[in-house]
Amino acid sequence: MRQRRIGLWLIGACGSVSGAACLGLAAWSRGLIPTTGLVSTLPSFQHLDLDPPDAFVVGGHEVRQADLLTPVMELHTRSRVFEPALIDACRSDLQAWSAHLRPGILYRPNAAVQALSNRPDVRRLRHPLEAFLAIQADLRDFQNRLALEQVIVVNAASTEPPFQPDDRHQSWDVLRRALEHEADLPLPTSSLYACAALDCGFPYVNLTPSRGASLPALEELACLRRVPHAGQDLKTGETLLKSVLAPLFARRHLRVLSWVGHNILGNRDGWILNDPENKASKVKSKDALLAELLGYKPQSLVSIEYVESLDDWKTAWDHIHFEGFLGTKMTLQFIWQGCDSLLAAPLVLDLVRLVALAQRCGEAGALPWLASFFKNPLAATTHDFTYQFALLEQWAARHQSRSS
Amino acid sequence: MRQRRIGLWLIGACGSVSGAACLGLAAWSRGLIPTTGLVSTLPSFQHLDLDPPDAFVVGGHEVRQADLLTPVMELHTRSRVFEPALIDACRSDLQAWSAHLRPGILYRPNAAVQALSNRPDVRRLRHPLEAFLAIQADLRDFQNRLALEQVIVVNAASTEPPFQPDDRHQSWDVLRRALEHEADLPLPTSSLYACAALDCGFPYVNLTPSRGASLPALEELACLRRVPHAGQDLKTGETLLKSVLAPLFARRHLRVLSWVGHNILGNRDGWILNDPENKASKVKSKDALLAELLGYKPQSLVSIEYVESLDDWKTAWDHIHFEGFLGTKMTLQFIWQGCDSLLAAPLVLDLVRLVALAQRCGEAGALPWLASFFKNPLAATTHDFTYQFALLEQWAARHQSRSS
Amino acid sequence: MRQRRIGLWLIGACGSVSGAACLGLAAWSRGLIPTTGLVSTLPSFQHLDLDPPDAFVVGGHEVRQADLLTPVMELHTRSRVFEPALIDACRSDLQAWSAHLRPGILYRPNAAVQALSNRPDVRRLRHPLEAFLAIQADLRDFQNRLALEQVIVVNAASTEPPFQPDDRHQSWDVLRRALEHEADLPLPTSSLYACAALDCGFPYVNLTPSRGASLPALEELACLRRVPHAGQDLKTGETLLKSVLAPLFARRHLRVLSWVGHNILGNRDGWILNDPENKASKVKSKDALLAELLGYKPQSLVSIEYVESLDDWKTAWDHIHFEGFLGTKMTLQFIWQGCDSLLAAPLVLDLVRLVALAQRCGEAGALPWLASFFKNPLAATTHDFTYQFALLEQWAARHQSRSS
Amino acid sequence: MRQRRIGLWLIGACGSVSGAACLGLAAWSRGLIPTTGLVSTLPSFQHLDLDPPDAFVVGGHEVRQADLLTPVMELHTRSRVFEPALIDACRSDLQAWSAHLRPGILYRPNAAVQALSNRPDVRRLRHPLEAFLAIQADLRDFQNRLALEQVIVVNAASTEPPFQPDDRHQSWDVLRRALEHEADLPLPTSSLYACAALDCGFPYVNLTPSRGASLPALEELACLRRVPHAGQDLKTGETLLKSVLAPLFARRHLRVLSWVGHNILGNRDGWILNDPENKASKVKSKDALLAELLGYKPQSLVSIEYVESLDDWKTAWDHIHFEGFLGTKMTLQFIWQGCDSLLAAPLVLDLVRLVALAQRCGEAGALPWLASFFKNPLAATTHDFTYQFALLEQWAARHQSRSS
Repeated sequence: MRQRRIGLWLIGACGSVSGAACLGLAAWSRGLIPTTGLVSTLPSFQHLDLDPPDAFVVGGHEVRQADLLTPVMELHTRSRVFEPALIDACRSDLQAWSAHLRPGILYRPNAAVQALSNRPDVRRLRHPLEAFLAIQADLRDFQNRLALEQVIVVNAASTEPPFQPDDRHQSWDVLRRALEHEADLPLPTSSLYACAALDCGFPYVNLTPSRGASLPALEELACLRRVPHAGQDLKTGETLLKSVLAPLFARRHLRVLSWVGHNILGNRDGWILNDPENKASKVKSKDALLAELLGYKPQSLVSIEYVESLDDWKTAWDHIHFEGFLGTKMTLQFIWQGCDSLLAAPLVLDLVRLVALAQRCGEAGALPWLASFFKNPLAATTHDFTYQFALLEQWAARHQSRSS
Repeated sequence: MRQRRIGLWLIGACGSVSGAACLGLAAWSRGLIPTTGLVSTLPSFQHLDLDPPDAFVVGGHEVRQADLLTPVMELHTRSRVFEPALIDACRSDLQAWSAHLRPGILYRPNAAVQALSNRPDVRRLRHPLEAFLAIQADLRDFQNRLALEQVIVVNAASTEPPFQPDDRHQSWDVLRRALEHEADLPLPTSSLYACAALDCGFPYVNLTPSRGASLPALEELACLRRVPHAGQDLKTGETLLKSVLAPLFARRHLRVLSWVGHNILGNRDGWILNDPENKASKVKSKDALLAELLGYKPQSLVSIEYVESLDDWKTAWDHIHFEGFLGTKMTLQFIWQGCDSLLAAPLVLDLVRLVALAQRCGEAGALPWLASFFKNPLAATTHDFTYQFALLEQWAARHQSRSS
Repeated sequence: MRQRRIGLWLIGACGSVSGAACLGLAAWSRGLIPTTGLVSTLPSFQHLDLDPPDAFVVGGHEVRQADLLTPVMELHTRSRVFEPALIDACRSDLQAWSAHLRPGILYRPNAAVQALSNRPDVRRLRHPLEAFLAIQADLRDFQNRLALEQVIVVNAASTEPPFQPDDRHQSWDVLRRALEHEADLPLPTSSLYACAALDCGFPYVNLTPSRGASLPALEELACLRRVPHAGQDLKTGETLLKSVLAPLFARRHLRVLSWVGHNILGNRDGWILNDPENKASKVKSKDALLAELLGYKPQSLVSIEYVESLDDWKTAWDHIHFEGFLGTKMTLQFIWQGCDSLLAAPLVLDLVRLVALAQRCGEAGALPWLASFFKNPLAATTHDFTYQFALLEQWAARHQSRSS
Repeated sequence: MRQRRIGLWLIGACGSVSGAACLGLAAWSRGLIPTTGLVSTLPSFQHLDLDPPDAFVVGGHEVRQADLLTPVMELHTRSRVFEPALIDACRSDLQAWSAHLRPGILYRPNAAVQALSNRPDVRRLRHPLEAFLAIQADLRDFQNRLALEQVIVVNAASTEPPFQPDDRHQSWDVLRRALEHEADLPLPTSSLYACAALDCGFPYVNLTPSRGASLPALEELACLRRVPHAGQDLKTGETLLKSVLAPLFARRHLRVLSWVGHNILGNRDGWILNDPENKASKVKSKDALLAELLGYKPQSLVSIEYVESLDDWKTAWDHIHFEGFLGTKMTLQFIWQGCDSLLAAPLVLDLVRLVALAQRCGEAGALPWLASFFKNPLAATTHDFTYQFALLEQWAARHQSRSS
């Protein structure tokens, strides 16, 4: 039987998460690396009909002057990761995929994104319909030229400022009309891309805290077109730890008095988050889960700051002050030093494989069983990582029994 | 309906865990403290027929010259915990309970325990049967004089050296005969106490890594006498964190390369553990769970050291080195600063309440659903804290439906 | 020979630094405590003619409804410091001194200080001369009624916002005229107090980053009146460490790439600093020394945040990223957990004793040999703590030889 | 004027410190790197007649099967340091110098060193005189063949167990006779090498805690032959920090109650130190300075443990518990993450340059002004880093004025 060919379309294709994911995909295809970091290769998921790495072809949008090798070399040089031999071995794949890149589309970008967009052929469009159609043309062309069975669209672009939806974003019917008729319609670029993808029947995965498909109108569209989507904001470091530590405090009836988290990092993600407008989305996403997990709201502080010398090595210090028996105050502190892009990259591949399978199984709308991947999971009912992961295992177990 | 009266018999009654538990019990009875730290007061357990704090009467064995106020004052002065007003308000209870203390019984103690035993009327017995009968006499006298419905025996004594069982410890029949006929029978003091308690029909809870009831012969005895027991080694700090963090690494397919844990503390527990013989039991108990939780054995180091100035404030530094995607090495470190006795004390009260209820429900032998309380849980199948806690919640849920 | 009597006049007398200093002074007088924490009792300073603790009488200004016992009890209850017996033993002194307190004087206070000032008899004055004279009246009355040889005025009040001096603050002549004639003259309260003190011939010590006596006009006044003064901003924790660690990096030719410092605390100082206006002074004072000590300006971040549960226990996390040989990046992190008021309090007593002696020796103006006490030392040429301390030891050595 | 040619003879030439020093020397000669990490290039030392990097020719002894590229590649691959381009550019130097390597000489080695010595032509000698003469032959041959003005011998070999000298090690006369006549004379290999070097008139630098030239007989020999020497045990991480932090506590009169330091590392140094015999020397060297710096002996613990995954990245956690004013206990913790060999390597080059100059200036015996480089400095009177560094600067200042 012929192998399926799946398109992986990356918005923000030359960012470091995308670059690391592409290098990893190429290296994994060639059998050059162990599967460490890839959740979907754990024993619980081994018998699912997940696509092998060589099923995937990469394309994407990008606003900066770069190709897929750019972030890889930058990570290697600045953050001292990857063996040079591995890069060499994968170079031809990265070059071949780079040929599928298209200039990004800017719709009402804020200043920080403007500053970043140095690709001369980037498309600055004022009418949302124009932008929407341009995106769809790129996506469909990618599918047709490469004869792809499925295309999964992944938002790996910079974090946008928070967005307050209004009546126009509550139903697809209303939003579609606004798209067609309203120049300068307030709509985040991420949602415009999500809209274009879902309308084509392409699943959408949102790695960032940007709005993406998390608007009622887009959920409706996803269900109409029978397309699954997933998001939002990958959970890779400090928040991941929160999602196992906060339940521990709750179960031991230890009262968290304050939870302070300071994050420092020096990659482009950090640079964009240094803009207070963009940072607001992230901080909110990192902070929200405590109240749900603890059942009350302790004093909490979250900061993210750009420290250039750290490059991709995100360092987080968390100070958790809690009260135990007889009013005794105690402290837990942790320091997390992780290479941010390399924590995120394997999860991108996991999500693409799982969402592609979900689409083939006929699932549509936000997928709640992917909650363990995200800081702010769509359609999910808990932030407790262990229970989120159990959902994923249960889905896998159910799916296996159905497929056997 | 008259309230039940339950005896709480503490072996090592004047140690700091016992002292803090007694102060807490008195303060809780009088409504002076919130229930923070008490697991059994969480909503999941609210509808169980658990005994209120004023149902309990305390007694116990002790080898040192002290009463129940001694550890309380020592903790207050040296570790700066407890409000003086709280101690004053509870003083009369602690004094009343101190009248029930009995001199401890020493059977083949090692040098560190010998050094500790400064109570002049401590009973040094050479024949195990003599010791066994002396313990039972004390326990029965406690029950009879105070007209107690149940007595729960709790081992809060200093950690013993590891013990290697032989054929004599495999069945109750053989052990019983050896007890009767063999002077100097190799048997840890903790197991002798456990044996005496279970044979009287009194549940036994082991807070320490000492052997206690964890010998096949004693499990058989517990089942014969229809008595439940629980253990071993309370999980209060570093190991508690391991039991949520190790599963996180496993579920994210991050490979733990090394896990180093250094513990420093300055209380009597720390002093006893400074003896290499006694420390061995503890280190083993703290280290074992990693391999089970990860599915492989990373390099690991655990140390516990006596640092006098810290008193009861145990500080643990853990350094976890792990490998992510594409062979990238990353680090998580945590620092735990907890008041050891005050982390343990509420769990003692939880266990006593839960075990008392279990006995009334007819359960016998080691209770696997108490696994979340222990570093080395008896009859348990997992070290994953979240799953251990789910067992407790499920037991509570099942029990409620039966009792309603 | 009759013992000298020296007045210690505290502005912000019921703050926690003042309270701890007063308790310490009383306890030291009574021989109840070791001299740990008091720099001036080290062997290098033993033969100086420094005043013994019982030479001092305390008075002060305060805007809040409180006496000297208030901060002591608050520290005891909230931050779990001080033995109750010690407080009892010193209670009569604190009460006696409280009788010397006077309602504070507010001149152009900002909102945060306004919010704090709940004492009904606080004096809100609009004309600087009125305020100036009211302060002097209080100070002189204190001296006269108690027949004090010297009065040392100490600014322990809340940190003020940064102040930009203009031409009026450059010479005493101009400033004096402005004081007399210009209602609403821009002048920080701390400088108004400093002015009043120096003009009376009373030395002034500034524990805070507020302007105080650090204006050219006030330096001129101090020299005119032959009065010494010292400041500013006590160096007690994170910055103290910076002042020995930064020189270490410089001397080993290790290049500091970034220095990030996050401070969290929960006392009134922290609450006031939560106001961005006030915080600005502090952050500047904490950050300035790096460039001087290293010889270049690395990226640096300093934050101070109010975390209520910490009370007086200030916690600082510093992350220092540096480059060594062959471009290798390495990291030093430190975590400081100190009781802020108890780090500052003994330094207050040291400064008062040293400044009183300096006045008797005829020194005037800012005292550069007190640099080791301050984050932003007046008239000092280095931030290197070891060299600053050597200045103090040299002064002591010189002074001894002269006095013998 | 023709440039001087200086020999740098490394004992343990293929260890990672040696390898990093050689790579650095080559790279610096070629102008490929900044001088970061090299103390002797700081402004204070710029006008000294120190030899430029291209004055040096490397040779050495080694017991393992390796050349100078071996440790460089191992560091690069395992610890992710050095740019590949840098290694390539320096490869020819490392190869050329490798031709000067000679098989190491083993005299009474312990088991751990035996296990390491896999070079087939290593010379295992039983009579000390035989070993002494073999070393001298190699050193003289190196000097003569390459026409070197000076040869500096550096001990970069693995740490030896502690050695207890006796009467034979107190004077050169006695030791010389024992060397000649006593087979199996107790004498550490490091001292045998030191003896051979000094007797040839070659300065000796001891980077390790091994005995080396620190025996009275060898000090006498150095003075007789007019040769300088320096040692011992490079101060690169945790102890370096101790030497600025302990004086800080002393100067602020804060009482250190306990100082706990845990070091973990995964290089060969760590592997050798895992042998308890060898570790003893190191721990002693790391621990001794506290009592001198503080003026009393706090409780202290130092551990060094081999954690393979860390490779050359030594991580130290130090927990310092101290008492401030009014008996308040506070805590400072630091975490040091440094690449051990790259901290040591530039200091090797500094020492060689400084010692070569000292010899030309006619200095002989242990050089006290090099104290700032060592954990256990010979002939030094203080462990306070700032004062040690001042000695170096004063020497430089004096020397400049003499040379101008």
